[in-house]
Amino acid sequence: MNQEALKALLEATKSGETSIDEALEQLKTLPFSDLDFAVIDHHRQIRNGHPEVIYCESKTVDQVLGIMKHMVNERQQAVLATRVTTEQQSAILDAFPSASVNVLGRTVKINCPEIKETADYVAIVAAGTSDLPVVEEAYETVSALGHRAVKVVDVGVAGIHRLFSRLDLIRGAKVVIVVAGMEGALASVVGGLVDKPVIAVPTSVGYGASFGGISALLTMLNSCSSGVTVVNIDNGFGAAYAAAQIMKL
Amino acid sequence: MNQEALKALLEATKSGETSIDEALEQLKTLPFSDLDFAVIDHHRQIRNGHPEVIYCESKTVDQVLGIMKHMVNERQQAVLATRVTTEQQSAILDAFPSASVNVLGRTVKINCPEIKETADYVAIVAAGTSDLPVVEEAYETVSALGHRAVKVVDVGVAGIHRLFSRLDLIRGAKVVIVVAGMEGALASVVGGLVDKPVIAVPTSVGYGASFGGISALLTMLNSCSSGVTVVNIDNGFGAAYAAAQIMKL
Amino acid sequence: MNQEALKALLEATKSGETSIDEALEQLKTLPFSDLDFAVIDHHRQIRNGHPEVIYCESKTVDQVLGIMKHMVNERQQAVLATRVTTEQQSAILDAFPSASVNVLGRTVKINCPEIKETADYVAIVAAGTSDLPVVEEAYETVSALGHRAVKVVDVGVAGIHRLFSRLDLIRGAKVVIVVAGMEGALASVVGGLVDKPVIAVPTSVGYGASFGGISALLTMLNSCSSGVTVVNIDNGFGAAYAAAQIMKL
Amino acid sequence: MNQEALKALLEATKSGETSIDEALEQLKTLPFSDLDFAVIDHHRQIRNGHPEVIYCESKTVDQVLGIMKHMVNERQQAVLATRVTTEQQSAILDAFPSASVNVLGRTVKINCPEIKETADYVAIVAAGTSDLPVVEEAYETVSALGHRAVKVVDVGVAGIHRLFSRLDLIRGAKVVIVVAGMEGALASVVGGLVDKPVIAVPTSVGYGASFGGISALLTMLNSCSSGVTVVNIDNGFGAAYAAAQIMKL
Amino acid sequence: MNQEALKALLEATKSGETSIDEALEQLKTLPFSDLDFAVIDHHRQIRNGHPEVIYCESKTVDQVLGIMKHMVNERQQAVLATRVTTEQQSAILDAFPSASVNVLGRTVKINCPEIKETADYVAIVAAGTSDLPVVEEAYETVSALGHRAVKVVDVGVAGIHRLFSRLDLIRGAKVVIVVAGMEGALASVVGGLVDKPVIAVPTSVGYGASFGGISALLTMLNSCSSGVTVVNIDNGFGAAYAAAQIMKL
Amino acid sequence: MNQEALKALLEATKSGETSIDEALEQLKTLPFSDLDFAVIDHHRQIRNGHPEVIYCESKTVDQVLGIMKHMVNERQQAVLATRVTTEQQSAILDAFPSASVNVLGRTVKINCPEIKETADYVAIVAAGTSDLPVVEEAYETVSALGHRAVKVVDVGVAGIHRLFSRLDLIRGAKVVIVVAGMEGALASVVGGLVDKPVIAVPTSVGYGASFGGISALLTMLNSCSSGVTVVNIDNGFGAAYAAAQIMKL
Amino acid sequence: MNQEALKALLEATKSGETSIDEALEQLKTLPFSDLDFAVIDHHRQIRNGHPEVIYCESKTVDQVLGIMKHMVNERQQAVLATRVTTEQQSAILDAFPSASVNVLGRTVKINCPEIKETADYVAIVAAGTSDLPVVEEAYETVSALGHRAVKVVDVGVAGIHRLFSRLDLIRGAKVVIVVAGMEGALASVVGGLVDKPVIAVPTSVGYGASFGGISALLTMLNSCSSGVTVVNIDNGFGAAYAAAQIMKL
Amino acid sequence: MNQEALKALLEATKSGETSIDEALEQLKTLPFSDLDFAVIDHHRQIRNGHPEVIYCESKTVDQVLGIMKHMVNERQQAVLATRVTTEQQSAILDAFPSASVNVLGRTVKINCPEIKETADYVAIVAAGTSDLPVVEEAYETVSALGHRAVKVVDVGVAGIHRLFSRLDLIRGAKVVIVVAGMEGALASVVGGLVDKPVIAVPTSVGYGASFGGISALLTMLNSCSSGVTVVNIDNGFGAAYAAAQIMKL
Repeated sequence: MNQEALKALLEATKSGETSIDEALEQLKTLPFSDLDFAVIDHHRQIRNGHPEVIYCESKTVDQVLGIMKHMVNERQQAVLATRVTTEQQSAILDAFPSASVNVLGRTVKINCPEIKETADYVAIVAAGTSDLPVVEEAYETVSALGHRAVKVVDVGVAGIHRLFSRLDLIRGAKVVIVVAGMEGALASVVGGLVDKPVIAVPTSVGYGASFGGISALLTMLNSCSSGVTVVNIDNGFGAAYAAAQIMKL
Repeated sequence: MNQEALKALLEATKSGETSIDEALEQLKTLPFSDLDFAVIDHHRQIRNGHPEVIYCESKTVDQVLGIMKHMVNERQQAVLATRVTTEQQSAILDAFPSASVNVLGRTVKINCPEIKETADYVAIVAAGTSDLPVVEEAYETVSALGHRAVKVVDVGVAGIHRLFSRLDLIRGAKVVIVVAGMEGALASVVGGLVDKPVIAVPTSVGYGASFGGISALLTMLNSCSSGVTVVNIDNGFGAAYAAAQIMKL
Repeated sequence: MNQEALKALLEATKSGETSIDEALEQLKTLPFSDLDFAVIDHHRQIRNGHPEVIYCESKTVDQVLGIMKHMVNERQQAVLATRVTTEQQSAILDAFPSASVNVLGRTVKINCPEIKETADYVAIVAAGTSDLPVVEEAYETVSALGHRAVKVVDVGVAGIHRLFSRLDLIRGAKVVIVVAGMEGALASVVGGLVDKPVIAVPTSVGYGASFGGISALLTMLNSCSSGVTVVNIDNGFGAAYAAAQIMKL
Repeated sequence: MNQEALKALLEATKSGETSIDEALEQLKTLPFSDLDFAVIDHHRQIRNGHPEVIYCESKTVDQVLGIMKHMVNERQQAVLATRVTTEQQSAILDAFPSASVNVLGRTVKINCPEIKETADYVAIVAAGTSDLPVVEEAYETVSALGHRAVKVVDVGVAGIHRLFSRLDLIRGAKVVIVVAGMEGALASVVGGLVDKPVIAVPTSVGYGASFGGISALLTMLNSCSSGVTVVNIDNGFGAAYAAAQIMKL
Repeated sequence: MNQEALKALLEATKSGETSIDEALEQLKTLPFSDLDFAVIDHHRQIRNGHPEVIYCESKTVDQVLGIMKHMVNERQQAVLATRVTTEQQSAILDAFPSASVNVLGRTVKINCPEIKETADYVAIVAAGTSDLPVVEEAYETVSALGHRAVKVVDVGVAGIHRLFSRLDLIRGAKVVIVVAGMEGALASVVGGLVDKPVIAVPTSVGYGASFGGISALLTMLNSCSSGVTVVNIDNGFGAAYAAAQIMKL
Repeated sequence: MNQEALKALLEATKSGETSIDEALEQLKTLPFSDLDFAVIDHHRQIRNGHPEVIYCESKTVDQVLGIMKHMVNERQQAVLATRVTTEQQSAILDAFPSASVNVLGRTVKINCPEIKETADYVAIVAAGTSDLPVVEEAYETVSALGHRAVKVVDVGVAGIHRLFSRLDLIRGAKVVIVVAGMEGALASVVGGLVDKPVIAVPTSVGYGASFGGISALLTMLNSCSSGVTVVNIDNGFGAAYAAAQIMKL
Repeated sequence: MNQEALKALLEATKSGETSIDEALEQLKTLPFSDLDFAVIDHHRQIRNGHPEVIYCESKTVDQVLGIMKHMVNERQQAVLATRVTTEQQSAILDAFPSASVNVLGRTVKINCPEIKETADYVAIVAAGTSDLPVVEEAYETVSALGHRAVKVVDVGVAGIHRLFSRLDLIRGAKVVIVVAGMEGALASVVGGLVDKPVIAVPTSVGYGASFGGISALLTMLNSCSSGVTVVNIDNGFGAAYAAAQIMKL
Repeated sequence: MNQEALKALLEATKSGETSIDEALEQLKTLPFSDLDFAVIDHHRQIRNGHPEVIYCESKTVDQVLGIMKHMVNERQQAVLATRVTTEQQSAILDAFPSASVNVLGRTVKINCPEIKETADYVAIVAAGTSDLPVVEEAYETVSALGHRAVKVVDVGVAGIHRLFSRLDLIRGAKVVIVVAGMEGALASVVGGLVDKPVIAVPTSVGYGASFGGISALLTMLNSCSSGVTVVNIDNGFGAAYAAAQIMKL
């Protein structure tokens, strides 16, 4: 039952065409779906300005292109695509020559506005160069959601002086994302040094008993630094999305 | 917005007191909560005749008694309580002397009707005597939900002739619940011998590499017999509830 | 000992050729194998009308073709093949041009009868498009087993209004199969909204801490909605088989 | 090297008693420890107004009392104690009769100021009554850190209408904490319905394949709703601390 | 259908009272259960002389006593009880003063014959004194099943000379059981030194990353010494039973 | 120090060339290696007639050929190679045209004697055709070690009548190897039906929650049938080696 | 065969009492045990001065006292007992009033010499007060093995300035033991700051996803700081023993 | 604040241009980064002579070459590269024809000095030939760090006489590295035979329940031989680095 149908029902009630009891019955039993527009509208308004996000990992090239064309051409929406394969990247660039591709971060952006320099920013802190794909995914997501992000990489705890030399930049952020694989200790150290929300992203970097990121994940969940929250392994997008939700408060 | 308020809105719309646009706005934004009665009523009707179920494991004696008194005295409902501790059982019997307690199954029933002998029944098949608490929980649940249950115990696959000697009784059921711990192989064997829905319940019976029921759980999930479905470890209630849903089709 | 041999023994007993004690001894020690026909016949009668199912994952092209030719050409049976590789699909189409292939679901059907529109149906509800291969396997299996199936896809809980808009279709089913990966929360939500048997299929969709479907599997086993039963990860066939067993009750 | 020593060094440099090169050498090699006051002061200022937090789980009654007396009597600090055992609670009440104890949440507060009603609040949403200890720990922590918290309990997804009836209250919050055990699906559903930071706390409520909270933990890490972040199992304190860090931005 | 019924059927067939077709029909459809005696008899004969085994872990004192009295008093059987609790041991000694209790091994034997000295024996080799309960359970089981067992304890690989000093005794055995906790390396070392069947029993002795016996279990399953087979953690009974089956070949 | 050197030392002692103290010192400090021949000789004698076994999985073609040529050409030994890759098989056939290759079992035998028909045999019982590679590896190993093996395949418990029809053959064996993947229930069922040593081999056949053979492994370790022992996943060689050790007793 | 017997054999060979062939035979087949003295003597010399270590966890009070009396009274050895229960501690103090008990570390020392102040020391660095039992066990072990140990506690990474303020003390050590629970990040940070052997001990301190120390264990195994080695969870003794082996080089 | 700025501040203080209080304030708040040179210099001095280590696993060919050229050409440093892929090896040899490549160990060394024969050495003991890649990585690392290493391979415990024949060489080492896969029992046996620091490296060699090295890892962590420390699976570099730190004490 869409808005028009609802209006018609009210008008039929007003005119007496439909009795109040009949109208009541229809409203009482109206399925949730008939109220969907409320949910959707309310929801969309809140999300206003956000690009649509397409997770490409398990989609074919055709599926990705189909969704993108619908969103960009018909609905004039901005789009952020994540986990885009090399093959998908090529196809997207053919179809949308103005698309902006981050090869390392495996992201594509279409019609996402430029981010202006603001005082508030999200610091994305990473232990090593192997964590860069996740850093880049987070960076592009924060940007696409309209916020400024600053990268602070290669500051793993094995050489902690590197971290301290960048501490001002990290402490100046409104939200801090910490990206680390192997033992993931960076999240605890950063969490103890800043007094801002810290979102930790374990990465699958490592071998042997790193178990594809489980080691870093457990480290971060058990952090002795209060207030560190955690997202899924390699989930740079999720951390950035959570950071953006905090940034817009 | 309850039913009366909804009726009043319709009447105000009919009388012109409220404009159609205003009514539309109110309806459009009416929170889901105001339609709760619809969901509840619809839902309850379907469940008609079912007792309310109280899961007692993490509740205090006072909490359990409070809920029971509300349900039994004020709402005249039948009650099935599961995972009832010894202490809770005593307190319930003091408060409801007519309550029916199954010590082994840790269940209490109040005002649940007698189950009459019917052609259709649920067979609850168990590997060993150690599985009896789960069997009894399933038995009481099937009964409380209004269906006949038949127990076939101590038919583990180590002595498979015992299973075959009870096969007619098992094959005569409409739904079969298989309860087994240790390696849980009984589910596969029964699943291969009957052509009815088989619901498997792994139990935590065992030691060492049974890992508190994980071994039996994995066995049942990987059953080579088609169509075996599985519930949580020791979840006799859940298997019985699922069986009852099938019985009433 | 086949039926003829058994008859001969009885006749020899009647004629006195074989003494009662000798006959008794032969019968007492007759191996189970000699009674196989009973089991098989009885069993087959129950299964009547079902196509034979071939699980192709670990079979060579030649093995699959050999089995199919035996079943189709010599025994005139209908066949449902699951987990059919691309290479196997091609070979089957060469040998059985009338075979019906579902590429996404990796199934092949030969001589399976058309399903007529019936009031009763199995609803196959899925969280996302990545779950489609499992949905299709379940769909083809329900159909091949003689029942009508209806697909309700892309109704994951992240946008719960999409689920509510399809709720009538789901509630109208006799049995509901819920297919979901990642966190698998859809099974609990659907289980709380319908009062029909719900069979949950965790899928291996996801990454990181989804651990190839373990996350969804645990979610479904621990569902707070009563009566949800679970099958193995990605086991669309098993869920469909269980649903079919319920449908034919 | 404390502040006084540093001042003395500068004065000796000014007076020529110490050459610039000597001073440089001393400063160059001064251990980090000598600058500790800077870190501490800076850090403390940021934390200003926060009570000191004492985690009591692995401490003796004497240890807890000793720390509390030092903080309260000598340093006039407010104190929040978490995971306080029954025995510890009694001893604390004997020593600090004005202490405020939350038995269910196992917390004790001393000299924590009252929270005034503010427009901004943290919503603490919980699936079931068994999750209440974690809810109460989170509630007391948010309060002790100076922010208003609102509890929304017993809104598990098995009866999703209960959640929808409280949705306005949840959507009105600035930060949402979701507490859930068993399968933990509530986090995904809430994450899809609000557009605020959502911090999920898995609880150890459940049995069998809930594995002491692992099931809920995995569910939340794999949430299909973007932007949900997660803390350790039963870590109500950690979620509240993270929420407070967001509240004060 | 018991033996008498079968005989009656044959006689009725012989006399013509029952037609051959009717007899055939009865035999054809006779359930497996009616042939149980065959299985049982055949089976029992093989097992001849073995005491009945009662696993007491999950049984009440009354249940254990009931089963024992039935077996000992009514059926004159020898009995081996395993995993007997202290409380059960006392009750058994009250009821059967002649029972033989092994406190460390938690076993009780009633009416089991003495084992005479034979050339063939089972060597039970154990790493440390903490493994003794499992050693004793194995020892009593081998004895109760009619074979001679020899214990070789405290020969862990940390002091490998102790093992070598007992090597002749170990090599002289017909079957070797190796019992070890912690890292369980003893099984591999023994497996490389003897050319007899080696059955390894991991024990739950250890702490931390021994994970209740998983470490030793994995060690034994991955043994680089060919031909080592493994039983469940702490399953001294199972290893002894397997050894006895080999001894009687 | 080989046997000759030892003899020379004794002779030198006898002749007085070497003093008793010097001889004592040499003997006292003689490294274990010098006594190796004792171990080796004793060991080899026991193994007499066994071919050398080469595990090829992590070896290059050249390494495998090198070892084989040394053994076959220089030491005239029989050889059994296991886990031989396709590439290795070709190279071996080029070098040893008389080699006997089992493609499915991935084994190669050179100069292994024919096995004559004997009354005693090892039964290798397997659940499904997917388990055949493990069955064949076990078969070739039993044969190469000088014993007769009999295969009984496709007797999984989903159609238990197939197992019963082959029961005589299984019961006639001296040792039974059970090979099964998925849920591995076959080991328990066979273990309950025979009274011979049963060695269970879990296979990695399956998907999802079979976890590469863990499900079958746990099933077998927790078998409710007494006396079942277990080897590593897919370790057909190990089971056969253990069986051969029993056969030669 | 002890040294005397060996000498006797040589003398009998020299005198002709024993032929060379007979002597050869005796030597050839002499069991390893007869050469044990070599191993033992050599071994003991190396260990010279070390107290005997008794692991008490799974021993009875009588067993512990028996071993101690044998060692102390008969063999005049110093003794270090670890994991001593409260009950065992009392009994030991009754029997050996001069014994030195460390209640927190659960150790007892008898006749262990005083450690003199030396320039070389082992630094035992710990994250929190909850790790103290492991710290004390390590401290007493290092001391009992004859080396000086220095404790540096409560320097967890959540407040990293505390660690830096003690850095000189840590860097001055010859070997560093790092003890940490929860996420165990301290090992990586210390490993990056010192250039000495670092031995990490994960502790079982924590809850939820710390999984009894697994989180800290994985962190330490995956440490990004080169050269960190790890011992079992809570194994303060093992780390200290390894440190002592390095100290004495 | 670099050294020059610090000097300028001191001079300004001396001249009175900057007041002591201002200088104090600047020094008090000077970020850690400005003192980095101290940390670095101190650190580097300790490491003096060590080549730089490049972990190549997750780096592109260009990245590896870039880092190498910077280090070798501009900073005249020696380089050790580990986990070098075949493709990376070729590119490095093109750019640095004098580079020394260990194909099996996947290492490359540039400008690393020759190791002279010394009395002290590290023994690298390995169970089987499949462990050789890890052995070689450890060997090259020990050498590159300036110490002599000796390899003792193929001494697995299945044929323990092979180990004993090499025992003198192992016991002569100052530090022992034990490399073993499958069940990893070698570490415990060696740990019991030597009285030197033993560093154990589990390898991923094995199949089935070796779980990619977890079996060997757990074995080593639970070693019954005191003082064995452990590094990550396949981490030959880490063990060698730890050994080198001990060697230089």
